[in-house]
Amino acid sequence: MDRGWDNWRVSSNERRYVIRLGCPDRAGVVARISGFLAEAGGWIVEAAYHTDPDTNWFFTRQEVRAESLPFGVDELRRRFGEVARELSAKSDWTVTDTGRRRRVAILVSKEGHCLYDLLGRVHSGELDVDITAVVGNHADLAGITRAHGIPFHHVPFPAADPEGKAASFAQLRQLVDAGSPDAIVLARFMQVVPAELCAEWAGRALNIHHSFLPSFVGARPYHQAHQRGVKLIGATCHYVTAELDQGPIVEQDVIRVDHGDSVADMVRKGRDIEKVVLARGLRAHLESRILLHGNKTVVF
Amino acid sequence: MDRGWDNWRVSSNERRYVIRLGCPDRAGVVARISGFLAEAGGWIVEAAYHTDPDTNWFFTRQEVRAESLPFGVDELRRRFGEVARELSAKSDWTVTDTGRRRRVAILVSKEGHCLYDLLGRVHSGELDVDITAVVGNHADLAGITRAHGIPFHHVPFPAADPEGKAASFAQLRQLVDAGSPDAIVLARFMQVVPAELCAEWAGRALNIHHSFLPSFVGARPYHQAHQRGVKLIGATCHYVTAELDQGPIVEQDVIRVDHGDSVADMVRKGRDIEKVVLARGLRAHLESRILLHGNKTVVF
Amino acid sequence: MDRGWDNWRVSSNERRYVIRLGCPDRAGVVARISGFLAEAGGWIVEAAYHTDPDTNWFFTRQEVRAESLPFGVDELRRRFGEVARELSAKSDWTVTDTGRRRRVAILVSKEGHCLYDLLGRVHSGELDVDITAVVGNHADLAGITRAHGIPFHHVPFPAADPEGKAASFAQLRQLVDAGSPDAIVLARFMQVVPAELCAEWAGRALNIHHSFLPSFVGARPYHQAHQRGVKLIGATCHYVTAELDQGPIVEQDVIRVDHGDSVADMVRKGRDIEKVVLARGLRAHLESRILLHGNKTVVF
Amino acid sequence: MDRGWDNWRVSSNERRYVIRLGCPDRAGVVARISGFLAEAGGWIVEAAYHTDPDTNWFFTRQEVRAESLPFGVDELRRRFGEVARELSAKSDWTVTDTGRRRRVAILVSKEGHCLYDLLGRVHSGELDVDITAVVGNHADLAGITRAHGIPFHHVPFPAADPEGKAASFAQLRQLVDAGSPDAIVLARFMQVVPAELCAEWAGRALNIHHSFLPSFVGARPYHQAHQRGVKLIGATCHYVTAELDQGPIVEQDVIRVDHGDSVADMVRKGRDIEKVVLARGLRAHLESRILLHGNKTVVF
Repeated sequence: MDRGWDNWRVSSNERRYVIRLGCPDRAGVVARISGFLAEAGGWIVEAAYHTDPDTNWFFTRQEVRAESLPFGVDELRRRFGEVARELSAKSDWTVTDTGRRRRVAILVSKEGHCLYDLLGRVHSGELDVDITAVVGNHADLAGITRAHGIPFHHVPFPAADPEGKAASFAQLRQLVDAGSPDAIVLARFMQVVPAELCAEWAGRALNIHHSFLPSFVGARPYHQAHQRGVKLIGATCHYVTAELDQGPIVEQDVIRVDHGDSVADMVRKGRDIEKVVLARGLRAHLESRILLHGNKTVVF
Repeated sequence: MDRGWDNWRVSSNERRYVIRLGCPDRAGVVARISGFLAEAGGWIVEAAYHTDPDTNWFFTRQEVRAESLPFGVDELRRRFGEVARELSAKSDWTVTDTGRRRRVAILVSKEGHCLYDLLGRVHSGELDVDITAVVGNHADLAGITRAHGIPFHHVPFPAADPEGKAASFAQLRQLVDAGSPDAIVLARFMQVVPAELCAEWAGRALNIHHSFLPSFVGARPYHQAHQRGVKLIGATCHYVTAELDQGPIVEQDVIRVDHGDSVADMVRKGRDIEKVVLARGLRAHLESRILLHGNKTVVF
Repeated sequence: MDRGWDNWRVSSNERRYVIRLGCPDRAGVVARISGFLAEAGGWIVEAAYHTDPDTNWFFTRQEVRAESLPFGVDELRRRFGEVARELSAKSDWTVTDTGRRRRVAILVSKEGHCLYDLLGRVHSGELDVDITAVVGNHADLAGITRAHGIPFHHVPFPAADPEGKAASFAQLRQLVDAGSPDAIVLARFMQVVPAELCAEWAGRALNIHHSFLPSFVGARPYHQAHQRGVKLIGATCHYVTAELDQGPIVEQDVIRVDHGDSVADMVRKGRDIEKVVLARGLRAHLESRILLHGNKTVVF
Repeated sequence: MDRGWDNWRVSSNERRYVIRLGCPDRAGVVARISGFLAEAGGWIVEAAYHTDPDTNWFFTRQEVRAESLPFGVDELRRRFGEVARELSAKSDWTVTDTGRRRRVAILVSKEGHCLYDLLGRVHSGELDVDITAVVGNHADLAGITRAHGIPFHHVPFPAADPEGKAASFAQLRQLVDAGSPDAIVLARFMQVVPAELCAEWAGRALNIHHSFLPSFVGARPYHQAHQRGVKLIGATCHYVTAELDQGPIVEQDVIRVDHGDSVADMVRKGRDIEKVVLARGLRAHLESRILLHGNKTVVF
């Protein structure tokens, strides 16, 4: 929330400020927040609420027309901070500005379908972000990356060499962090991220797992699916945490398969789900639509 | 809104008041509504908003804990009326009480899949309503209806006899209106409802059409779909209006078919979509989740 | 295959004989089977093939117009037996007659949505079978069953009383087996079937599990799904085997949920998937469309 | 079928010959075809059949291991020609060789999502074809095309200048035909192809239309969908014919939208469907899985 936004853009779309907050539920919380905005003249153009009755926790996301307020995002954040304290909000509340161009780092391996998909969205302007870097443990995707004017870094990860791997992760971390990304996207990266890096990137690193979690955790999920004889295969976009494939789920989808589909067919069909699920998850993340609630997500 | 609710129930679930309103959009409208509720101590447990930028129109639905307010639904409706006037709300705004048991009339013909589905939901308590009457232009479904202790009325509709049809509709109208239903469900009724009845039941009569509208309007949509060679067939739940199959769409869904599916197969597969789409639409209607905006719906 | 079909019906549809067989794959196997049929004048109206390259195993299902053959199903079965032996077919090959009315026993507990759905299909003629018995460990569904002229048997299963349970299962077995059913449908039966009964009913007992297996095996799958925060919930129709929820999967489907769905909402939404998935699986079973291949199914 | 295949490839997968044929249905047709193959030692690895009872027409597609036959594809085609004549097959029967690398021409305008998707599939090897040319009426996609070593031709289409358009189409036709493509893909080309070109490319030109046909024919289908208030939007891949958006449908899919989706949101969500539907349709076409039957398709 306070990583010091400093580069701005004039969007083709209307500029908005986005408030995102979770706090204990009680009567009047909606009125407190909307009253605060109304007092300042804020015009709410999108608002979403969720109450979790099990934990009595309240979540909201509000979009306000930037031009309807007499001050900027920093002042809005400062003033809203008082409301957040008053409501005993969780510390991960944010006030962001859609006018600030988001920054994304992408980690890849050999498989390019997710990267192609993301680059296509960047090219068309649908995903209006700066790709700060693409880092691959193989060099297969250097060409397509550089054709878009984006730096590609090849960082090999030596198999069965823990020390070498640690060094590679240190290098990767540096390359990623240099771009101060809002999101780190593991676009079929295929390496297990060390716990300390998971901690540093907590709430910013999104992985696409090629199964409908919690089914088929770990390696070769399509082989597992084929072995079990399921009639649908899926993909899951989740935040990366130290426990493999156990992070908060952001988005999932499935596609039908049948007895005629080999593992290779499943891999092929699954790709079409993976790339769309990842893109949806990333979009929700960059638009500040996701709130964490324990190991679960609220996606507005 | 003012059809005089007079029978109440204590729900197994928490009782809530539901506010539903559309009005011209402007800054402060959210604050005005939530402020009004907060002042009275109202605890909002579910809230949804939508702004239509094309028409600059604002829509909201709010659920408040009944016990959080020091007065009942009639007083809430009276007081909220002032807010509604102040906001220049459309006249179809409502304040309803989930504690009042809803009433539903069902119109059928020969095909029973939608009726079976609805009765099953009533039996399980999922659809916690009174079925005031089932009226059929054939008697095929009398048995299953009466097995549930629900009155079944057989009103034949003579083909190619306009006067006879008018008399039948007059009788049907009387049977339906006698139960003061909140919803009139055309569960594959197969008769074209006269314009005056559409007008009387405006916003209360839900039809299930067995195609993915606007494709295949009118008679024998599965034959039309088979003829065109589509790869998906669908069903549409919409409000009944005088223009056939042109009313505001509430819910739709589709199912995959292929070259191997005959018209009979499409009819069979389509039934599974029809009944679910109708049930979803009816549920949204009864929970006051639907707002009309021209010929379109906002479904919260 | 040889349980001695003896009661026949004249279907409104064309009568057909259905051959279903698995055997080791080799060149000429399609020609051997279709040549055998052609020699006898058999007119194939539907044919499906599958080769599993991993195991080099071949599967087929063929529908032949009954009237195109100069002999009946028993003679066809006798003659085809020679082909099956020649092809070293698995012993579960069958030759069946669509003109024979199928028989189905249904096991239920308290939840009625699957039973309502099946009875609706029977009533409409879509599921053109005899329901030989409905057996429930609770009596809740006696009324709707008997309203259809179908015998309902209440067999209580005492909790935490192994001997009592064994006696109940013995009684249930007798009630089911008395009807010589082609399918035993566990329509949300909620009791774990003993291994010996699983063995007796092998390949005939279909269960509907209320999760997208292999996720959420065992009890309270919707609670598990809610806990994990998945974005889709599902249902699985599978053959019953001694290992709980591990039998060959016949059919699966899913429905979208989000953070706003409570466990109760998931239960409600899940029902709509459960009943459709079960009905599809049962239909495929009764039409001899399913072949077992290890713990997997080929569904033609 | 007889456009003179002359360039071959050794696939990483097993090489197969594919027979595709439609003929009047009668007893023995399956046996005639499989018997013909068996006599020559042909090992069928995939076989599909369809009978259309309305027209009494039979369709089949068979894949045979190339190495199981003692002759090549030309000799197989010659010999099978006798069977085809004997069965009075439609003249569009084919015998093709999966070992021959397919050739694809792509027509584009400004929107790149389908092109990116196809190029990604080519890059990964999933779509193992030669892209002979990309022709655009705008130059926006020249960069990404040429980054893949594929020639891009910019052919402007002057608006409201029929003669200029005719000249542009003549140039486009030359550029496309020079590559002798097996498929001409209109990847959001946005120009109405003249009737004579439709005729020349009949059965080879695939279009992606951004609606669920037959809904929303013609221009700006997402605007039409938004206007009508549908709850699902779709995409349709179809063969190009002289009558706009009326050609045989190959594949369709849909995605859910709601009242909150603007036209721009629909455009964005629709893209994810368009590209996948087009890719599936193209794959089926290139694998000789599609047979035409009047204005409908059989897709094996």
